[in-house]
Amino acid sequence: MSLLVVGSVAYDSVQTPAGSRDVSLGGSATYFSIAASYFSPVSLVAVIGDDFMPEHVELLESHAVDVSGLERREGKTFRWSGVYSTEDLNERETLDTQLNVFAEFKPVLTDQQRATEYLFLANIDPQLQLEVLGQMSPRPKLVALDSMNFWIEGARSHLEDIVGAVDLVFMDEGEARAFAGEENLAQAASRIHSVGPRIVVIKRGEHGVLVSNGGSLFALPAFILDRVVDPTGAGDSFAGGFMGMLAATGDLTDGGIRRAAVLGSVIGSFTVQDFSADRLAALSHDEITDRFAAFERLTGFAGLETGGGLPQRE
Amino acid sequence: MSLLVVGSVAYDSVQTPAGSRDVSLGGSATYFSIAASYFSPVSLVAVIGDDFMPEHVELLESHAVDVSGLERREGKTFRWSGVYSTEDLNERETLDTQLNVFAEFKPVLTDQQRATEYLFLANIDPQLQLEVLGQMSPRPKLVALDSMNFWIEGARSHLEDIVGAVDLVFMDEGEARAFAGEENLAQAASRIHSVGPRIVVIKRGEHGVLVSNGGSLFALPAFILDRVVDPTGAGDSFAGGFMGMLAATGDLTDGGIRRAAVLGSVIGSFTVQDFSADRLAALSHDEITDRFAAFERLTGFAGLETGGGLPQRE
Repeated sequence: MSLLVVGSVAYDSVQTPAGSRDVSLGGSATYFSIAASYFSPVSLVAVIGDDFMPEHVELLESHAVDVSGLERREGKTFRWSGVYSTEDLNERETLDTQLNVFAEFKPVLTDQQRATEYLFLANIDPQLQLEVLGQMSPRPKLVALDSMNFWIEGARSHLEDIVGAVDLVFMDEGEARAFAGEENLAQAASRIHSVGPRIVVIKRGEHGVLVSNGGSLFALPAFILDRVVDPTGAGDSFAGGFMGMLAATGDLTDGGIRRAAVLGSVIGSFTVQDFSADRLAALSHDEITDRFAAFERLTGFAGLETGGGLPQRE
Repeated sequence: MSLLVVGSVAYDSVQTPAGSRDVSLGGSATYFSIAASYFSPVSLVAVIGDDFMPEHVELLESHAVDVSGLERREGKTFRWSGVYSTEDLNERETLDTQLNVFAEFKPVLTDQQRATEYLFLANIDPQLQLEVLGQMSPRPKLVALDSMNFWIEGARSHLEDIVGAVDLVFMDEGEARAFAGEENLAQAASRIHSVGPRIVVIKRGEHGVLVSNGGSLFALPAFILDRVVDPTGAGDSFAGGFMGMLAATGDLTDGGIRRAAVLGSVIGSFTVQDFSADRLAALSHDEITDRFAAFERLTGFAGLETGGGLPQRE
């Protein structure tokens, strides 16, 4: 089964406590595509400027990403620059956003793209997300979206429309609280369910992820790393690994969703170990398998009960 | 095997987003004792004033807590008051601290207390913690301590002495970072190990707990609750459940430590569902067992791999 992602391809400049990197490959659809490519074929729909370097198209192609939907326009590629807090890598400040050719992004899907079974609407204008979903035919087996505070504050009504039309939403902790108007995460997830999606995935950065799949809650801590170099793209890589797993297995049972969340976390944990997609793009299947096993060791406690149940004071 | 706790018994006044409670039973040793009592016999060493209510002694006795070390002095019981942030229940501000009789606390252990196999030094002056440890004979099988920012900033050298003398430390995330002088939690845990303790337990509030047992890391999310009424005592209840399990089972293997961390989290999750120790003190063994099972459902993903390993794009 195949997977379509519609989102941004960008050049980022970031400063983190570990250093800085200028004009390096970024964008939600970039991270998503490479992450998903480890499990499933991916088609990418995005727009780039005439400054986009051939080596970056080749990088995507080397992961068998279908780049026929990567539209090249006159002008510059989307650019973002930001700086991460030294105290809390979950916090970042945007220094500059230049939409450039992305401002004119109006994807028109091919017949083959319209028929893709798994669709990921990366963080773009909710109106555009709605328009893309409207082009799909037949409706995909699973539609997921990502969003951000910018749209929650500025395009609430369109955002509610698209959230109401998808099966799965990815939001970070702050976004879920803001969208739901509720501080308690379990209750925030319930309110988001009530808008439509049957799967709500709340990304908590270095604190892991909370998945609400209907009534079933799954909490997973983040993988523990000795060193985080650059958090940029962690959430998109997580979503890519997650959706790549679902598209590869077609397993939408609760167990399948949980496994997708673990694999998403595995992939995201590699992304943050270097700038840009440097580490993400260089993964081997063995490295992914080994880190999945390490995740099991990090979090496992099942089977530790004594045969007679828990001890009780006599 | 039995468990000795030396710490504070207090009256707290708290304001939380869910309401407020004046002059209710609190104190680190109180929460710890009641939590541990579900698994193991506990002896409590603390000081109270002549205002301490008989019903609160009876509450401890009803949990079979040995209160022979609860010294009553002329004056008032230790009082604390604080207010929790409506945005982030991990954040609280102390409004007032009155040490009262606690200022003169100089515990002298009985021979029986000195011989206890499991010792918990709750958050008190590190010099006092050292003095209590010096009274133990023979050295306990396991000595644990809790601390707080106040001592990290104000009594660093004594704190390092006692941290260097124990087997296990409980610290919250901010304390571990401050004590270690290191933002990365895995590296902070390594530095704390290098001071002495072979087990480092980092409490992350609503984000769970990270246990470093020598080289083995265990990350556990917090139990997800629809509603948190009052976070006061969560950390002490966690430590009580944790140490109560260790004292009950004597199991200091990595599996035993992990199980203790889960049971500590189970007990702490009950504490925050009501003010003071109201919920904590009213637990049944079935409720504890059920929530342990719920924790397994919340966090479990083991055994979800397909027989042939993870899928791989063809």
